[in-house]
Amino acid sequence: MSEKIALNVSEQVRRGQVLSADCPSRTVLRHVTSRWGVLVLIVLQDGTLRFSDLRRRIGGVSERMLAQTLQALEADGIVRRVSHPVVPPHVEYSLTDLGDEISVRVVALADWVEINLPRVLAAKAG
Amino acid sequence: MSEKIALNVSEQVRRGQVLSADCPSRTVLRHVTSRWGVLVLIVLQDGTLRFSDLRRRIGGVSERMLAQTLQALEADGIVRRVSHPVVPPHVEYSLTDLGDEISVRVVALADWVEINLPRVLAAKAG
Repeated sequence: MSEKIALNVSEQVRRGQVLSADCPSRTVLRHVTSRWGVLVLIVLQDGTLRFSDLRRRIGGVSERMLAQTLQALEADGIVRRVSHPVVPPHVEYSLTDLGDEISVRVVALADWVEINLPRVLAAKAG
Repeated sequence: MSEKIALNVSEQVRRGQVLSADCPSRTVLRHVTSRWGVLVLIVLQDGTLRFSDLRRRIGGVSERMLAQTLQALEADGIVRRVSHPVVPPHVEYSLTDLGDEISVRVVALADWVEINLPRVLAAKAG
């Protein structure tokens, strides 16, 4: 997973440069690794959810922050928002294909942190 | 990588709960996915670096933000700080074993974003 792949020049130009301050890849990385973005991707891996379900499953998120997070991920094409024209309004969120792919990486990271938390806490104490 | 592993109860209790607002795993996840934390982990994968080298390689980071980021990662046992008692001071940063393991996951995520940036930008435009 960590192996470096030699890139030819056209690949280097085409792909993003996350270490460069003005590359748009950095904005996307910030959205998917944002405080609540990470948790939204984790929860949506289980399937389509309504706003209120998302909010209930993510401990501590405010309505405002969750709405902002979903908006940014929707604009990146990572989250799909479907609004059903009924009364009362019924809005559902799910991962797009892009979102599916990236959530796998985010979940791998979060899983590592959860599973290795005892080692991190031991390192803190030591 | 995304496969769910069934956990028995003791494992569920022992490991962190990143969806819970008061679990310390969430703080660690925030440090490694922070705006600059992600980029520090990526750059340190290449080996030991001095503060000034880190700052030069990470476009746009301020001295203050880089120092704060390194401090948090050091407290989590993810980054090792070695200060050589010479004049002028010579301070080096590297990944610990924990840091090595987590940086692999962070780099996998950043690589995905860099490589798939054209698809994300196309989704934004569409």
